Amino acid sequence: MILSKRALSIKPFIAMDILEAAQKLSGQGHEIFNFGLGEPDLAPPEGIQEACIEAIKNGDLKYTHSQGHSSFRNIIAQFYNKNYGVEINPDCIIVTSGTSPAFFLVFSALLNPGDEVILPNPYYPCDLNFIEYLGGKAIFLELKEEENYAWNQKKLESLISKKTKAILLTSPSNPLGTIASPSLLAFLAHLDIPIISDEIYHGLNYVEKDRSMLQFSKKCFVINGFSKSFGMTGYRLGFTIIPPHYVDAFRKIQQNFFISANPFVQAAGAYALTHCVPDLEIRKKIFQKRRDLMIGLLSEMGLAVRYHPLGAFYLFVDTSSINPNSYELAFQILNKAHVATTPGIDFGSCGEGHLRFSYATDEKKIKTGMTALKNFLKKT
Amino acid sequence: MILSKRALSIKPFIAMDILEAAQKLSGQGHEIFNFGLGEPDLAPPEGIQEACIEAIKNGDLKYTHSQGHSSFRNIIAQFYNKNYGVEINPDCIIVTSGTSPAFFLVFSALLNPGDEVILPNPYYPCDLNFIEYLGGKAIFLELKEEENYAWNQKKLESLISKKTKAILLTSPSNPLGTIASPSLLAFLAHLDIPIISDEIYHGLNYVEKDRSMLQFSKKCFVINGFSKSFGMTGYRLGFTIIPPHYVDAFRKIQQNFFISANPFVQAAGAYALTHCVPDLEIRKKIFQKRRDLMIGLLSEMGLAVRYHPLGAFYLFVDTSSINPNSYELAFQILNKAHVATTPGIDFGSCGEGHLRFSYATDEKKIKTGMTALKNFLKKT
Repeated sequence: MILSKRALSIKPFIAMDILEAAQKLSGQGHEIFNFGLGEPDLAPPEGIQEACIEAIKNGDLKYTHSQGHSSFRNIIAQFYNKNYGVEINPDCIIVTSGTSPAFFLVFSALLNPGDEVILPNPYYPCDLNFIEYLGGKAIFLELKEEENYAWNQKKLESLISKKTKAILLTSPSNPLGTIASPSLLAFLAHLDIPIISDEIYHGLNYVEKDRSMLQFSKKCFVINGFSKSFGMTGYRLGFTIIPPHYVDAFRKIQQNFFISANPFVQAAGAYALTHCVPDLEIRKKIFQKRRDLMIGLLSEMGLAVRYHPLGAFYLFVDTSSINPNSYELAFQILNKAHVATTPGIDFGSCGEGHLRFSYATDEKKIKTGMTALKNFLKKT
Repeated sequence: MILSKRALSIKPFIAMDILEAAQKLSGQGHEIFNFGLGEPDLAPPEGIQEACIEAIKNGDLKYTHSQGHSSFRNIIAQFYNKNYGVEINPDCIIVTSGTSPAFFLVFSALLNPGDEVILPNPYYPCDLNFIEYLGGKAIFLELKEEENYAWNQKKLESLISKKTKAILLTSPSNPLGTIASPSLLAFLAHLDIPIISDEIYHGLNYVEKDRSMLQFSKKCFVINGFSKSFGMTGYRLGFTIIPPHYVDAFRKIQQNFFISANPFVQAAGAYALTHCVPDLEIRKKIFQKRRDLMIGLLSEMGLAVRYHPLGAFYLFVDTSSINPNSYELAFQILNKAHVATTPGIDFGSCGEGHLRFSYATDEKKIKTGMTALKNFLKKT
């Protein structure tokens, strides 16, 4: 077997080990309470399916412009204008099959071997893998619970070197659910370094109106998509908004590696942005209620959820008093309580001693799952 | 602007320059005869749309297994078994959003910086871009018209070095329409080098039954999809079949960079393979008739099509007697005759002096376009 160094060293998702073990238990007839996944259980808002079907029936079945249907890019630009008050040239948008390929575009276009990207720790595991697989090096900005996981600007400045090619910001964040403050966004905008702003959890901000990095800087790279707030995971639809002078190079990469995103899926996305934005408020309230329910139930069983997430749909809970080894603990809880979670170590060294609980699951399952967890903890 | 070396050096598609100029002329009200594109005009066989719609209605809208629905992978394995008599483990299949991302998987997993891939010249432009963008170096096997563009095995052997990590074979080929002989396939199988077999033009072989590289070697990497023979370009559906010991690494790359392919598009692909294979014969005959029509019309106007393609849907015609500069000539013909073609130089140094005519266009357009070209040639 001849594998490249990058392929040999790409890290596994520990979450997948848990998922596979959970599937095995499920296959043996056990009911599993799955708080491990980042896939919303809520079906996408009404009308999106029909818009997709309509586009298929209308024969919208060919390659589109490599950057996406211009009508769809206009709608995305209008959405950013209406929601954030920013002017976007639709020619600066590239529609992708989910946000993951957008990360390939951005990181592969920016990074030479050995170039550095500043990444908060804990981080979303794929982010580190994108950077390293494409030849870059992640420099970690360690976040502390006692600082409410806020970015320390002095510490951040001390990490910047001549090799720093980008800073990756995800707000609301995964696994923490933190939200970047306006002062942090303004600070980042004034650094002379490209900011990659992952806005995939926009629409799931429980405390205030979402803010796009584009409100603070025109030189950033925004990545967003339809999987989280609209729950359109399987559709595989995302986009990136990039500074104008990068468009030619990005279009060439897109043409070669992806040709274009699916046209009828783009029609579904167009419908979502033009008709279903009001639904996002309703969905957000459902997630918020679940968040509060889960925080309450975890607290009742003695697990202090010290940091209350402001966005996304995860709780990141210190479980070091039960077992400081999060990998071991996640398997104990899975095997004994049939509760699936994601071990904190999956999100980097600063995540150890924690478990991530996703509340993208209905209230009934949350209640039953939390009871099972409570009973397990009583016995330990 | 900070762009990586790979992003700065990725080559443009010259075909896109022509396409954009053609679109401009079209916008000015001129009728354009488009023989430039590799996108079949024929709609996909009946029932595929409905299968896709049915899957949407049934709520098949979530992430699938990262390698694709196991039921769909079973169908792909059965298709390869029925069509080629080979046994494929469905676990060795990874379903992708079109074949382009499959090339990313394969080349990124095999190539370290400076590693070599042997590529025929003329080649499909993306193939060179995939290799170079992912850090590899293409070593060209030059093909000669006087040898019917066949691969010279001695010459091939002389190109193999310690750095050779793969040989890329596309059969039927683009832009030539050549088909690899069984003896070539057997020869390649016995080299101790991974063969990447691009089988995207299978189903469009006018002379014999398609042969998969898998009939000759279990150690190859097959890439195939639904865009050409089934005409499902916009669906974005492809797959790769890889040797068993590569699966773990490939799955990790797939999970990180793509998560999974679209579930309802997979349902459409499953329907295509289970219900529409007989349609491929009918479609092939349509293309074959067009091929013969176009060869006839080009010959009538004094352009000798010396190599008659055996597969795919392109004619690669020596036009050096009109103008040896294919880029210039393609623009002359576009501007004066409103006939869009692809300049041979887009396919590498060995393509210069040629134009590629796609016959993925209906007979009426072929006739009218060829008349326009004839009138242009009379005046030159």
